[in-house]
Amino acid sequence: MLCDYYELTMANGYYESGMSDRISYFDMFFRTVPDGGGFAIAAGLEQIVEYIQNLHFSQNDIEFLRSKGIFSEKFLRHLKDFEFTGDIYAVPEGTPVFPSEPLLTVRAPAVQAQFIETFLLLTINHQSMIATKANRIVRAAQGRAVAEFGSRRAQGADGAILGARAAYIGGCTATACTISDRDYGIPATGTMAHSWVQMFDSEYEAFKTYCEIYPNNTTLLVDTYNTLKSGVPNAIRAYKEVLEPKGVRNFGVRLDSGDIAYLTKNVRKMLDDAGLDFAKITVSNSLDESLIQDVLYQGAQVDSFGVGERLITAKSDPVFGGVYKLAAIEDSAGNIIPKIKISENPEKITTPHFKKIYRIFENKTGQAYADYLCVHDEVPDFSAPLLLFDPLMTWKRSIQKDYVAKELLVPIFKDGKLVYDLPDIKTIRDYCADQVALLWDTVKRFENPHQYYVDLSPKLWQIKQDLLKHNECRF
Amino acid sequence: MLCDYYELTMANGYYESGMSDRISYFDMFFRTVPDGGGFAIAAGLEQIVEYIQNLHFSQNDIEFLRSKGIFSEKFLRHLKDFEFTGDIYAVPEGTPVFPSEPLLTVRAPAVQAQFIETFLLLTINHQSMIATKANRIVRAAQGRAVAEFGSRRAQGADGAILGARAAYIGGCTATACTISDRDYGIPATGTMAHSWVQMFDSEYEAFKTYCEIYPNNTTLLVDTYNTLKSGVPNAIRAYKEVLEPKGVRNFGVRLDSGDIAYLTKNVRKMLDDAGLDFAKITVSNSLDESLIQDVLYQGAQVDSFGVGERLITAKSDPVFGGVYKLAAIEDSAGNIIPKIKISENPEKITTPHFKKIYRIFENKTGQAYADYLCVHDEVPDFSAPLLLFDPLMTWKRSIQKDYVAKELLVPIFKDGKLVYDLPDIKTIRDYCADQVALLWDTVKRFENPHQYYVDLSPKLWQIKQDLLKHNECRF
Repeated sequence: MLCDYYELTMANGYYESGMSDRISYFDMFFRTVPDGGGFAIAAGLEQIVEYIQNLHFSQNDIEFLRSKGIFSEKFLRHLKDFEFTGDIYAVPEGTPVFPSEPLLTVRAPAVQAQFIETFLLLTINHQSMIATKANRIVRAAQGRAVAEFGSRRAQGADGAILGARAAYIGGCTATACTISDRDYGIPATGTMAHSWVQMFDSEYEAFKTYCEIYPNNTTLLVDTYNTLKSGVPNAIRAYKEVLEPKGVRNFGVRLDSGDIAYLTKNVRKMLDDAGLDFAKITVSNSLDESLIQDVLYQGAQVDSFGVGERLITAKSDPVFGGVYKLAAIEDSAGNIIPKIKISENPEKITTPHFKKIYRIFENKTGQAYADYLCVHDEVPDFSAPLLLFDPLMTWKRSIQKDYVAKELLVPIFKDGKLVYDLPDIKTIRDYCADQVALLWDTVKRFENPHQYYVDLSPKLWQIKQDLLKHNECRF
Repeated sequence: MLCDYYELTMANGYYESGMSDRISYFDMFFRTVPDGGGFAIAAGLEQIVEYIQNLHFSQNDIEFLRSKGIFSEKFLRHLKDFEFTGDIYAVPEGTPVFPSEPLLTVRAPAVQAQFIETFLLLTINHQSMIATKANRIVRAAQGRAVAEFGSRRAQGADGAILGARAAYIGGCTATACTISDRDYGIPATGTMAHSWVQMFDSEYEAFKTYCEIYPNNTTLLVDTYNTLKSGVPNAIRAYKEVLEPKGVRNFGVRLDSGDIAYLTKNVRKMLDDAGLDFAKITVSNSLDESLIQDVLYQGAQVDSFGVGERLITAKSDPVFGGVYKLAAIEDSAGNIIPKIKISENPEKITTPHFKKIYRIFENKTGQAYADYLCVHDEVPDFSAPLLLFDPLMTWKRSIQKDYVAKELLVPIFKDGKLVYDLPDIKTIRDYCADQVALLWDTVKRFENPHQYYVDLSPKLWQIKQDLLKHNECRF
């Protein structure tokens, strides 16, 4: 029942007008990369699989809809046995993706394909947004660990729990969110808040007690009163009195306020001077990729970052604008009839038809060069040189000679049955890192990245042009 | 288990150090109003009540924690019977609230008060943010209905479902999210997407079919091909052929793209010229309070707004920075010992002690003048003139003579038992509108609003000063 109400009015409408079983193809895609970046990271597929497998209407749902007084009894009876019987194709989670290409394609009777729209969109939009943001932050940290700390500022419980999952896919090493560890295997981490320090009569006593209880992995929060005058000296004293005699070296401090560059340089020196050159410095406090770049540029001495609200809400660009658009229908003979959505804005015109995507990798470098969209039953000759051209500015063209083509959309459901082995979360995270490594640095830079090519096959391009020409409304 | 991991390490730590039953007072408050506004709207209390009532650890949760190898067996055994036994005070949902005053105060054994931090924060932060944003948008619409349309761009399922609830509290009239209607009674609304129009051989046929199926409440989406040349003429024709003969007048059109001011003026004229002066015009497409103000200023002809992604994510300021800070502890004799969190930034220094809040209303105008924070057992003489002074710039003072004082924090839980009758959602929404009406217009303007006074009683102010002075770390 997590659906837009119009999906139900339309579903009932398709039923009433005898169109409910018309096979329809919908593409989920996005138009712009958040934060002006060069690519996004696809995420959320596992939750869509769960949703599709559990899709049903309870008797209570049906009674609720009946009470609205606008749905036909025939439709309501149909909902009792409603299930998804169609096909779904999707790019695997963790794949770098680009504007205008389908991240997911649904082929199903109209009433089903329409109904699942909202859940599909919100799930992929949310998790892809967070995975993309996390990947930016992780790249800015240049090899230092980044933990996701944002639950308390997330936009609802799922925002926290699945946001932590998506952040891990994007490259974070851990989360503060305990339930994301229990349910999704994202390593949970955390030691103390300011309240722990305040609860004791002195900061030293708070630190000493913590070291005694958790000798094997201690990170002391040093900014409750005064980082340099009180926090760090008390942390060093607690270490020397409790942990040093035990030979513990897995020890660190965390700063959650103040001038990161200035303070960490001083904290590093104080720790080193006390012989604690192994002690780690973690910083948190409203960080994101820009601030991390900035403090590292200033020479901040940081071993790991905790990133909260600006990651878990993707604060700098908190909407991932994925859409779900009709691409084709089938006539009663099973012929696919491509459909287009027109707009005055050329980027908003959809690419019609049931499609597949190939990613073209240069053999010389191993790097991804372009994505190539074809009609579903095309068999391109990838042993021959490949002509790539910009679908809007068609004079911009290039020929790739030494390349391999890898298909991106894989079958997830076939006739309503799951046909895909969901990878575990660690495998997804590794796959994401590997695939991002295959992108050119020019595509990965934060500001003004190179626009990666997403091109159409000549056949698909022609179908689009024909539909534009023959459309009933002209500009 | 939706908690930050450090709440568990601290809880276990309080247990191990014999402090788990130490009665602690925590305040939840925020420091700045989103979007530079003059006030926020408190929301989310109902979900906190549900959470507190259902709080427990399953055997699986305990096994999961045991597997971490850092929690004591005594603590893990204790979790089996864990429940909330403390007190909670909160401002009712829908109340306009201001920086630095508690929206919620918890008095409970340390281990409990600490554990509930994350859920309390994320719930109040999320719903207060959306209610506040919705209230801005509704005020910008100047009496026109605003429906919440953002599920597909929400940050997770709860972001959509509870976001719709919070938007309704803030003044929206409806939502597109069906489940928010079923579960929270927020009226769900919606008619058709572009895919409905594309699914038929012609736009006219799509409209005609819809009018036949839903004659009593038809809103036709007119921008699939070309709003003025195709959409509106087809809508008028479908109305005249199907609905006019039935005497239906509850009819309208929706625009989801293009130049709202230009198009709606033309659409209004076309509808009026065709005798459909009763037909309503709804617009959607990435709206927020600024754009709504702007199109109305340009004379756009709009009867209602659908607002999606910029409302459901609070896009312009998507983090509500509520914090949860220790305000006091009790010693073994039950004496309350106020606690303070110091910061170099004066606004970040907490206000210590167990407190209550009075809102001061001027009798002459009925309008809210200031909020007045006292120590919990103070009995101010509100029959006498009231001295109000700025807690930082104490030379800024005024005396109120003709006023009433209304207490804001009400008991929600007492010794773990719910002592509050949760109002229904309609009552909360009405209460919100009534309370916002009692704020001065200067506090309500969008840009550079007047800063509402949140002042301390002389007694509370003195306690804060004494704590600052006696704190071990000086600057």
